[in-house]
Order: sequence, then C-alpha cells, then structure tokens
Amino acid sequence: MSGKEKKPNEETTGRARGEEWWQTSIIEMMPGVIRLRGYEIQDLIGRVSFPAMIWLMLRGELPTDEQADLLGIALGAAVDHGPQAPSIAIARMAATCGVGINSAMASAINVLGDVHGGAGEQALAFYGDIAAAMDEGATLTDAVTTRLNRFFAEESGYVPGFGHRFHPVDPRAPRLLEVTRDFAARGVIGGRFATIAEAIEAEITRRKGKRIPLNIDGATAVIYGELGFPPPLTRGLFVLSRSVGILAHAWEQTEQGGRNKGPLPREWLWAYAGTPKRKLPDDGG
Amino acid sequence: MSGKEKKPNEETTGRARGEEWWQTSIIEMMPGVIRLRGYEIQDLIGRVSFPAMIWLMLRGELPTDEQADLLGIALGAAVDHGPQAPSIAIARMAATCGVGINSAMASAINVLGDVHGGAGEQALAFYGDIAAAMDEGATLTDAVTTRLNRFFAEESGYVPGFGHRFHPVDPRAPRLLEVTRDFAARGVIGGRFATIAEAIEAEITRRKGKRIPLNIDGATAVIYGELGFPPPLTRGLFVLSRSVGILAHAWEQTEQGGRNKGPLPREWLWAYAGTPKRKLPDDGG
Amino acid sequence: MSGKEKKPNEETTGRARGEEWWQTSIIEMMPGVIRLRGYEIQDLIGRVSFPAMIWLMLRGELPTDEQADLLGIALGAAVDHGPQAPSIAIARMAATCGVGINSAMASAINVLGDVHGGAGEQALAFYGDIAAAMDEGATLTDAVTTRLNRFFAEESGYVPGFGHRFHPVDPRAPRLLEVTRDFAARGVIGGRFATIAEAIEAEITRRKGKRIPLNIDGATAVIYGELGFPPPLTRGLFVLSRSVGILAHAWEQTEQGGRNKGPLPREWLWAYAGTPKRKLPDDGG
Amino acid sequence: MSGKEKKPNEETTGRARGEEWWQTSIIEMMPGVIRLRGYEIQDLIGRVSFPAMIWLMLRGELPTDEQADLLGIALGAAVDHGPQAPSIAIARMAATCGVGINSAMASAINVLGDVHGGAGEQALAFYGDIAAAMDEGATLTDAVTTRLNRFFAEESGYVPGFGHRFHPVDPRAPRLLEVTRDFAARGVIGGRFATIAEAIEAEITRRKGKRIPLNIDGATAVIYGELGFPPPLTRGLFVLSRSVGILAHAWEQTEQGGRNKGPLPREWLWAYAGTPKRKLPDDGG
Repeated sequence: MSGKEKKPNEETTGRARGEEWWQTSIIEMMPGVIRLRGYEIQDLIGRVSFPAMIWLMLRGELPTDEQADLLGIALGAAVDHGPQAPSIAIARMAATCGVGINSAMASAINVLGDVHGGAGEQALAFYGDIAAAMDEGATLTDAVTTRLNRFFAEESGYVPGFGHRFHPVDPRAPRLLEVTRDFAARGVIGGRFATIAEAIEAEITRRKGKRIPLNIDGATAVIYGELGFPPPLTRGLFVLSRSVGILAHAWEQTEQGGRNKGPLPREWLWAYAGTPKRKLPDDGG
Repeated sequence: MSGKEKKPNEETTGRARGEEWWQTSIIEMMPGVIRLRGYEIQDLIGRVSFPAMIWLMLRGELPTDEQADLLGIALGAAVDHGPQAPSIAIARMAATCGVGINSAMASAINVLGDVHGGAGEQALAFYGDIAAAMDEGATLTDAVTTRLNRFFAEESGYVPGFGHRFHPVDPRAPRLLEVTRDFAARGVIGGRFATIAEAIEAEITRRKGKRIPLNIDGATAVIYGELGFPPPLTRGLFVLSRSVGILAHAWEQTEQGGRNKGPLPREWLWAYAGTPKRKLPDDGG
Repeated sequence: MSGKEKKPNEETTGRARGEEWWQTSIIEMMPGVIRLRGYEIQDLIGRVSFPAMIWLMLRGELPTDEQADLLGIALGAAVDHGPQAPSIAIARMAATCGVGINSAMASAINVLGDVHGGAGEQALAFYGDIAAAMDEGATLTDAVTTRLNRFFAEESGYVPGFGHRFHPVDPRAPRLLEVTRDFAARGVIGGRFATIAEAIEAEITRRKGKRIPLNIDGATAVIYGELGFPPPLTRGLFVLSRSVGILAHAWEQTEQGGRNKGPLPREWLWAYAGTPKRKLPDDGG
Repeated sequence: MSGKEKKPNEETTGRARGEEWWQTSIIEMMPGVIRLRGYEIQDLIGRVSFPAMIWLMLRGELPTDEQADLLGIALGAAVDHGPQAPSIAIARMAATCGVGINSAMASAINVLGDVHGGAGEQALAFYGDIAAAMDEGATLTDAVTTRLNRFFAEESGYVPGFGHRFHPVDPRAPRLLEVTRDFAARGVIGGRFATIAEAIEAEITRRKGKRIPLNIDGATAVIYGELGFPPPLTRGLFVLSRSVGILAHAWEQTEQGGRNKGPLPREWLWAYAGTPKRKLPDDGG
C-alpha cells in the first residue's frame, strides 16, 4: 500500500504543501465526486457488501465474495461478552451521564487496549513467528515447540489466544475453527494458521496435562491471519466488531433510563480501607 | 424491547441485587454458553451476515436477508469523507502520539456529535414528524409544507439532511435513493420516507429558487427509517459506519509513521492575534 | 477576549492562510520563545501560582492573589466523590485494560456531561437570570420568585445546584459559602451570587416544606460566578477539578493491579432478562 | 499506600463483597460526610491550596506549603505549547463538532500518550537509574556515563528529556532548573535530580559536540522526582497541566464559532496519492 504513495516534498510551498501534509491513498474527492481506492462511491453502493467495503478501505483492493463473507463471520463473532466486560459497563454508565451515544461509545472503545483488546494481535504475531520458522524449513512440530519454549522461558501468563477465565471451552472458538476449515476446503484460504493454532493447543495440553483451549481472540486471529491482515489490524477489526455490542448496550441503557449509573446498586457504597478520620494539622498542612 | 424486561426489584439483596443492577436483555452467559437475544452464538456464527448480527443486537430479532443487505448498503456508504473531516484528522494525528489504535479511534469517534454526526438523527426525526402528520390524515404536500413552515419560522440554518458545503450534489445521495426505490419495488420496505425526502427537496427548491439536494445524512436516514430504526440509533449506526474510515486512516498514518503530527506542515506555525509582549507586573500579578 | 482577535482574511493564500486558520490569542511562539497572553513563560514560572496560571489562560489577564486563591479553593473542593460516580469507576476499570493513564483519564473525563458535570453550568445560568432581572430593577425576592415560577412551570426535576441524592446536607456547600462570605467581606468579590443562592434555597424550602439545600455544583457555581467566569466555563473548571480524583483513582487501581476489572466482583454475573433460549430459523434468518 | 489496604476477602458475600470490590483508600463517604485521606472535606476547603489538594489525593499525606508551591510551579509550566500540538488541535476541532467541552477535552487528553506525553515519565526513570547506581556506590560521572552508554547501545533517538525539534533552548527548562535550585537552597528538596540532569546534558554535549539541552519534559521530571513522585505519575501530572491549555483552546474555539473545523482552511483539500480512478469489476468484486 505505502509503496504507491508519493513521498511528501519538503520543498513544496503554500497550499500545495498544506494539502500534501494530509496526503492519503484512501479517498479522492472533488465537488460532486468521491472515490474510495479509485472506485466511484456510487459504483460501490449497492454492489459491495459492508464487510467488502471494510476490506477495500483497509487493504486497497476488493475481496472476493467468499473472503468478504469470512471477514464478516469473524467480525460478527466477537460483538459482545456482556456487561462484566469493562468496555460494555463503561458504555452503559456513560449513556446515563448526559453525553451523546457517540461519546458513550468512545469512552468504551478507548479501553479496548493491550489487555482488553490486544490478545488477538499478540496471537496472530505468535502464529506468524511459527509460520516464519516453517518458511525457513522447520517442521510444524519443531516450530511450535521452539516458540512455546521461548514463551515459557521469557514471557509469562497465558499463551495469547488460549485459555479463558470463565469458559471451560469458549463456544465461539471451535465453531470459528470449523468455519475456517470449511472455507479452506473450498480453497478460499489456505488453512495454515488453523493448523498452527491446533498444534499450539495440542502442545500446551501435552505440557500442562490439561486442555487450555483456543479462545475467541485466538480463533479470530486465525481467520484474520488467513485473510492476510497484519497483526496490528486485528485489534482494529476487534474494535469494529465490539463496537456493535457497545452500541447495543449503550442504547438499551438509554432506553432503560437512569442518571449517573454507578457500578453498584444505588443504595450500596464502597469499602474504605484508608487512613482513619484525622484532624488537619494546625498549620494547615 | 423494553417491555420484555423484568423491573429491577429494589428489595432484592446481596449478589442477586448486584447482578440485577447490570440486568440486560441482550446477552445471556454461563460457563461454556453465550446466547445473543436467545440464540446460541455457535448457531449464529457462519449463518448470519455481519449486518444481520448488527440488526439482531440492536433490534432483538433477526432481519430478513434483504433487510440485512439494505442495512449493510447504508453502513457502507458513509465510511469516509476524507481527512478534512475532524474525525478523520483526529484519528490520523492520534495515531502518531503513542497510543493504541483503539484510542486513536476513540478520540475520533468521540467527535461525531450533534454537528459532525447528528444530522441523520435530526433528518429522520424531521421525516417522522411529516409521517406522523400523514398518519393523522394530512396529505404529503400539506404535511411537508407545514413542517417546513415551522422549520423556517422557529429553527435556523439548513433543513437537516439537505444541502452540502462542498458537493453541489453529493454522489452518494441519489444512488442511495435509487437503491431504496429498488428495495421498495421488491417489497422489502415501503418507500414512504424516500417519498417524503423527495417532497421536502422539491418544496425547498421551490421556496429557495435553487436546488438544495438531499445529502448523505438525509439519504441514510431514509434507509434507516424505512428499516424501522428510531432516530437516535441513526447516530449510532453512523458511528459504526464512519469507524471503518477512521480505522483505515489511523492505520495508513501508522504505516506512514511520524511523531506528534500537527494539523499544519511541521515547518509552519500559527498566527498569533493576542496581546503583544508585555512585562509581568512587579507584584507578580 | 474575542474582540482583540483579527478576523481571518479569506483572501490570504498559502502558508499565511494555513497559519491564520489556526490563529489564537492564547499563545505566541518562536524558536526559543513562548509567550502566554503576552507574558514570557520564563517570567511566569515561579512567580504565578497554578490557579493564577489557569485564570490567565482562560481569561487573558492575571488575577489578583486573592482571586487566584478563591479559584483554587473551588477547584480543590470537587476533586472526588468516590467510585460510585461513573467517572471514577470508569477511570479505575480503564486502568486495568492495558491503556495509558492518559487514556484512562480521557474515558472518565468524557462522561462529565450534561448530567454528571453540567449542573454547575445550569446553576450559574439560573443565578445569572436572577441577577439580570435585578439589573433591570427587580427586587431579589421578586427575581427569585419569578425564576422559580418559570422553572416549576416549564422545567422539571431538581432546581440546578440544589438537593442531593445521598447527602442530606453536602458538607462542601455550607463551607464553600462560608469561604465566599469571607472573601466578600475582604472585598475580593461582591457576594451577589451567594445572596442569590441563599434566597433560592429559602424560597424552595418555603414551597416544598422541607429544605433542599445548596449542593457542591450550586456552591462552586456561586464562586465561579463571583469571579466572573461565564456558565459554560464552569463545566470546564469542574473537569480540571475532578481530573485530580480521576487520576488518583486510576493510579490507586494501577497499583492494586487486576486485569479487565468489571463492575461487579469477578465471580458474579449479571441477570438476563431477555428472550429465552431459541433455535435459529431454518433459513438462517 | 497499598500497604494500608485490606486485602479483598474472596469469601465475603453479598453487599459487603460488592462494596469490597470497589474498595479504596482515597475517599470515605457517609450521608453528610466526605473525607479525603482521613480529613473532613470541610476542614480542607479554604485551608489547603489546589496543588496541596492534588498532592494529598495522589500521595495520601499533605505536603508542606513549599512542596505544594513547587508542585504548582511545575504544573503551571507545561500548560500549553500551541495548536500545532496534536492535543491542542484536537481540542479545537472537537469543540466545533457539537460535543460538550468535557468531550472536547477528553479527545485531546486521550492522545497524551507515549510519544506526546510520555517523555517525562521516561526521563524520570532514566534519572532514577542513575540515582540507583549512585546509591550503590557509583560516582555521578560513572553512573551517567554507564547509563548513556547503555542508551546509545540499546535504545535509539533522543535521550528522554533532552533536545527539542523547535526550540534551540526551550525557555521553560533553564528557568525551571533555576527555580529547582532555589528550592534546594532552601532545603525543600535535595537537588539530586537537578544535578543528574545537568550531568547528563554535559555528557551528551561532550559526545555529540553540540548542546542538546534539557527540555520541558526533562525539567518537570526533575521537579516531580525531587518531590518524590514515581515516574508513571509524571504522565498523570502532565495531563493535569496540559488540560489547562486544552480547556483554554477549546473555549477560545467555542467563542470563535465554526462547524466541523478541519485541519486545513476550508477552501483547501488534501493530496490524493492512491490508485487512479478505475471501474468496478463486472462481478462486483
């Protein structure tokens, strides 16, 4: 993508220099004309599905129908995980504070960070390390073993994309893997990342003596990787996906009403664990 | 939707009261189980398109395939309007400040407020006033005339959904109206809001002596209204739509690199128009 | 303030036009030079208190020491109201999601909207209506009575700045009023808004048959009004004030640790009140 | 601070467990009672300056007057750097989009990330490494040399806290250092971090053959470090400081008016550098 772009010319002056400062390869506009990635917007409208439009905007080219379908399936799978997720709780509380629904969504989306939204990115990078080792001649088993050895030696916690605090098996993951295999069987994708993910799960199980199954982040990372998205974009795609649940909850809360909804029932408080009541020093501090 | 919900019981105590405080009709969860609006997530995955999932989450029931298609068309039409839009500019600048792509998106989505994202909501409410008058027996012409009379007497500026600062005719609007007419011809929708929008445009043209055409906000409001979405949700749907462009621009900027991108070329400054240089008063102020 | 500014000249072109687009009267900069409102930054540093700097930035002129002190007192009074406030809860949850402390603060500050942060603005506008009536010759009693009559006839809920869901008497309000009276006695301020607020409270008490006392929003609005801040800035000042509590809580949570802190204890869920489990229609929707 | 806190008891049930989940050592509340860090709020109001309140909230104890003064000086020094800073530009653009001033501030504060706001945190950590080496017996010269050797071998770019893209010498830095020396001479602080910062600047100058002077981030980090704040809080303090400029600019823009202010003058566009106009493939993609 970036290869096509003209390098800004520091010697340009005036308006041309200002316009160059905001240069983009995504959209071209003139009065009465809007083109996305070279296509007239009126040609795209009605002929290209919403997931295909997402793909075009992020990748610069149109996907096949099957690629767009698979992208849409992954996006649809992670829309919500309930109001115990900080993002959803924040959307609902924000909706009672007198801000627009856009701002309620923004406060929520903002927290889809390294911990709350980043596991897919890390998982895909992890798969990518293994794929790269295989490209250099390693067998699947060796590549997985080597990467996991490094993980357990240098990194900590759960392998990204595997295990879940709440679900023994996250019902979304095996279903997404099944769908991935279907699309691979039809030749839409290669299936390599699915194989890698399954090999990781098997090897973790062997080491731990119990199954730490693929989770939703690991499963959507498989699909996004199969479709050729780079790891950092998986977080962006997760934002698009979870935004749907964030909007649904913000809207439900708006309909329920309430003002300044706190995290606990209104008649509850919080436990205080600090310095007991004391007098201000005579000199005012 | 809200009719189905149990009213929170203020007399419940303990954990049940806490769980009731976060009551929702959207998602049910148990270990190994996720249900959205009553459907098992694994049944939805792979069988329901992304726009259909959006519809289910917001409305509580699945749409027909045609309804989902039309929703997807409207969502795809408004994904981007280029980096002179504050939301897109903010996404690009934020991406250079050392925050995650989720936060770059949040800062941008946050500004899709009454002025930048609210016109669709206002347009659909405007159409709705006219539709309500027709439900009470007014003719289309009378209903439009009465509402416009009230607008020009009491409100100000552009009629919401009509006119554009930049485009003589916004190329998205006539194409969206054409698509709407197609779906109405196939019986997917009634077409009433399209008729109302065209009547408004005609009447404004008659009064102003020049065409102030339907714009993107007015055109997507037609579709969202035809599909039965209430006006406040049109702003939420616009957020889902524009988030795609916001992500694409944040990502392109990330790829381009740069640190703390300002609004003007790095070698420029800003004009100062305030109090000239002065000395601090001797007493320090 | 705005009177001093040069009107942007639409005919300017090139770099000058770009720089004019970002024109400001607040800050002037050249290599090695930073001036705020005309003062060299190195002259201000060490000679002007933090509240005085806030005043200078917002008002364009330096305050007296006493004015700065009173501003600082009002800012210090509203820093926190505990984690049942949505803003504070959001800051704490966000701090566990893998985003920077700036983003945790942003998600929280974002919800200080019309309901959560706007009462001071509304209270000061309410006082201002009464002051304006007095400027035109009305007595205090008449002006208060007339405004309250209008409020109870046309508006709804609590009079802005009066009453509290939790505190019978908010301990901050009488203390702030006492301080205001001290400053008025010393001639720093006139004391007019304090008198108006007390008259409103007395009249509400008379009408309701019980005391609905001045709250923190009403009390800080008195001070900000006495100091000459326009109503919309009281919300901005509240943001500066509450940001302190938001930061303190985000930091305490960071120190406590935790990942993806939800609103309820980790082992709890939420009550589901929606459509019971159902099968997907055979045609997929 | 965290030592004082009771460990949450996973066996507690019901309301007590819910309240424990939101446990804090910062604020205690009962009807009619608000205590911050053990002090009644009405005792604090009017007797404690705004910087002292910030200190109390973040540190748990009241500062001396001199400590509070020095904190206020550092907070006042970094309030603004003009609208070419992304945070300020975002505040101004957001203020034209139809969102509250709190949301305009939130979008801006949100971008004070690793690149835009993080240099102070990195600088203080850098000083801390040198101080730790000295605690273990290294001389100042050796400690500085060793740390810089490591920096130039393993890290890249500018040493955090030194050098500036725009200012040959940032006028804030030498003045802040002068103030720091004054406070050290009066025994308020030790002055160690000032000494370390000067030694770093001297050694960089020696190596580079030209002066790369201390900047505002490095200078405020000196003060925050002298006052005992841990590195991550310096970013939080920077947010409090820059929020003042963000508010001032959002407010000035609100007064100027405008709708959907873009980064460039309204009559300009942006340069398009992508795929030229093309036809949609016949099969729709």
